[in-house]
Amino acid sequence: MDFDTIAAISTPMGEGAIAIVRLSGEEAIPIADKLFKGANGKTLAEQGSHTIHYGHLRDPKSGQVVEEVMVSVMKGPKTFTKEDVVEINCHGGLVSVNRVLQLVLNHGARLAEPGEFTKRAFLNGRIDLSQAEAVIDLIRAKTDRAMNVALGQMEGRLSRLIRRLRQEILEILAHIEVNIDYPEYDDVEEMTHTMLLPKANYVRKEIHKLLQTSQQGKILREGLSTVIVGRPNVGKSSLLNSLVQENKAIVTDIPGTTRDVIEEYVNVRGVPLRLLDTAGIRETEDIVERIGVERSRQVLKEADLILLVLNYSDKLTKEDENLFEAVKGMDTIVIVNKTDLPQQIDLDRVHELAKDHRIVTTSLLEDRGVDELEEAIASLFFAGSIEAKDATYVSNSRHIALLNQSLGAIDEAISGVEMGTPIDIVQIDLTRTWELLGEIIGDSVHESLIDQLFSQFCLGK
Amino acid sequence: MDFDTIAAISTPMGEGAIAIVRLSGEEAIPIADKLFKGANGKTLAEQGSHTIHYGHLRDPKSGQVVEEVMVSVMKGPKTFTKEDVVEINCHGGLVSVNRVLQLVLNHGARLAEPGEFTKRAFLNGRIDLSQAEAVIDLIRAKTDRAMNVALGQMEGRLSRLIRRLRQEILEILAHIEVNIDYPEYDDVEEMTHTMLLPKANYVRKEIHKLLQTSQQGKILREGLSTVIVGRPNVGKSSLLNSLVQENKAIVTDIPGTTRDVIEEYVNVRGVPLRLLDTAGIRETEDIVERIGVERSRQVLKEADLILLVLNYSDKLTKEDENLFEAVKGMDTIVIVNKTDLPQQIDLDRVHELAKDHRIVTTSLLEDRGVDELEEAIASLFFAGSIEAKDATYVSNSRHIALLNQSLGAIDEAISGVEMGTPIDIVQIDLTRTWELLGEIIGDSVHESLIDQLFSQFCLGK
Repeated sequence: MDFDTIAAISTPMGEGAIAIVRLSGEEAIPIADKLFKGANGKTLAEQGSHTIHYGHLRDPKSGQVVEEVMVSVMKGPKTFTKEDVVEINCHGGLVSVNRVLQLVLNHGARLAEPGEFTKRAFLNGRIDLSQAEAVIDLIRAKTDRAMNVALGQMEGRLSRLIRRLRQEILEILAHIEVNIDYPEYDDVEEMTHTMLLPKANYVRKEIHKLLQTSQQGKILREGLSTVIVGRPNVGKSSLLNSLVQENKAIVTDIPGTTRDVIEEYVNVRGVPLRLLDTAGIRETEDIVERIGVERSRQVLKEADLILLVLNYSDKLTKEDENLFEAVKGMDTIVIVNKTDLPQQIDLDRVHELAKDHRIVTTSLLEDRGVDELEEAIASLFFAGSIEAKDATYVSNSRHIALLNQSLGAIDEAISGVEMGTPIDIVQIDLTRTWELLGEIIGDSVHESLIDQLFSQFCLGK
Repeated sequence: MDFDTIAAISTPMGEGAIAIVRLSGEEAIPIADKLFKGANGKTLAEQGSHTIHYGHLRDPKSGQVVEEVMVSVMKGPKTFTKEDVVEINCHGGLVSVNRVLQLVLNHGARLAEPGEFTKRAFLNGRIDLSQAEAVIDLIRAKTDRAMNVALGQMEGRLSRLIRRLRQEILEILAHIEVNIDYPEYDDVEEMTHTMLLPKANYVRKEIHKLLQTSQQGKILREGLSTVIVGRPNVGKSSLLNSLVQENKAIVTDIPGTTRDVIEEYVNVRGVPLRLLDTAGIRETEDIVERIGVERSRQVLKEADLILLVLNYSDKLTKEDENLFEAVKGMDTIVIVNKTDLPQQIDLDRVHELAKDHRIVTTSLLEDRGVDELEEAIASLFFAGSIEAKDATYVSNSRHIALLNQSLGAIDEAISGVEMGTPIDIVQIDLTRTWELLGEIIGDSVHESLIDQLFSQFCLGK
């Protein structure tokens, strides 16, 4: 396909050592050549692909030096977009990078829309849609596990699985076509049903398996909404601080690099906890008392995980019992805190109230039990799960929705077969399954959807 | 010189398309080779200098893919640091870039200190100290003009001038040495004085000329502290809004790229105004009335520019007159606002009070006079000045201080000569001038100063 030449700042905005202005398109190299004067006098067009050149950008009008730069020349199709790509590395200041961008925009490039580079990689056929979507997941990843999932998806792990399933369906459909084209062999239909069923069941099983990873995948991608509840003075703030302090390094534990800590995320053994409104938590000490059990349930329902804190050194109260009522049926870990003080709590009753919820005893003051708590959180969400490096996770809501629809469609096809529905009705459901799966990898999607998907990207990607 | 191998994230932290982890040192390429598996199977050591390679980083222990990357190999000495440099371009997410950094740190690189790459460029003799300092100015530049000054300094414009002056002094010193070594020719001293004076005067003139650019240079580098004063309801907030709205794009006027607007800076025709505590301005409506003329003067003294606003449609009051008293002797522009309303103000009296201050009439409501005001601000600070592209500006406080000391030293040498002071005393002053100028370019500076200078840099530069 032929597109115009786009340009954008591809590094985060802010002060840094280096910033990159990236160009992609047929005119990328000619535009750069209008502005760049290399130390050795050669034009960029004369240079080999995948080479780097030191020199200066000059405004052709004034002849003035605009920046000292390193320019990378990458000729298509072995590039990110499959087009000619030029990356101008300049000093990482706001004025510097903007004047470089302005210069290339003034000399023939168009400002790229968010995600437009990746979109071109997709439209030019280098990657499929689910791979393209993984690029943004990769950038936004909050934990190592989430990044591994995104990386696997970008490498085409999900795509390959989806393609295999579509191939299976295609083979069934081909067989059905034969039947329809040769209706004179009336025993063929029977045969088709027998042959079709195991294949359809296989596809169904695979879709189902994928969907089973989706809860974890989604958590990895978006974080686990977590709420801490408990009566006043049981240690909720201490718990919050303990989780944040021990795990603040969600981003890195290299000193000096965490300039941009994502405060609201805490990485507990690979599970990204999104602590809901931590300021709020501190204030809503008496959430249950104040608004009653029913309303609390509504509030808590938005949480994926509830940490219910009790006081080891105090008797259970009506409020505690109400809390257990409020969290019924939700993923909850019960924390009995303050084991450094004399026991007053009736632990048997706690076990009775907690039912299946896991109970962890802690002394946050003495830093005891936190390891166990973290292990409880991690095991709650990775219990029995295959390790991320082997599994194909589905993490994207769009994919999950399409897989659910595919499951519905193949279910209808299967029950159709089982009930002896005419084969051309079954064919419709199978075709639908095939199409829905195709949407995941972008084989049959509307242009508006594509535009919408890429608009979520950051500029310059 | 031989150093260990350092690594750091060289792009700003945040979410972006691309991030760079940079390595410099003898082990840069071997470390990268431990981790990188290129698409074509070759090692990076086998590749030519200044080439780019697509592939994956793997953790050698687990064998797991850590990132999809583009690796640039640049072999010394034609690099930023004169050492071997490897730049790993990865996805611009926090987890991604940190795990890449962590990986290289785990395999032999040391985390670079802020400014350490530039420091190596200096220690390895690629650039001098004033050029190194220009790098950080370039990154922090708030306006195009400031960037041009920094760019000129980085290209060595200031350094060349300083070197020429030092050469002049060195020639005088050599001549003096001859005199001292051959005291038997007693007419030589006389001759030396005659010869010395014009040379010393020339050096003095050049230092003085440089210092004359320093006020503008410093403003370009650090911004012009600006305060808006005036009675309540004369339009101070409108003025502030007008300046901010029209010029908010200090960083860029390309839509979608201004993710990081520096709120407190406003770029007025190349003059960076630093609006002092704008919240404060809104509150200190009655600064003069409340705290009296004398105290106000103290407060206002910290400003480089005062915008004094009067009401065109109201008579001058005692408060207005007090304001004129308070700003006496300061760089002030008088703004007579609200020309959309009937005139009540006595303009002759305003001219009388304003004395040499420029007066601009505006209707901020109707957006009239703002151009003239901006022109007044710009001309106040660039009046008669040579254009930035031709001039050698001094903008750095350290340089200004050293130039002032040099001026003092050469002045003493000159008056010594004029008063017939023994030549070996004059020699001391000249040597001091030579040393002080040397400190600007880093020819004779302490290690601790160097450490301190580079510690102001951002990480990865």
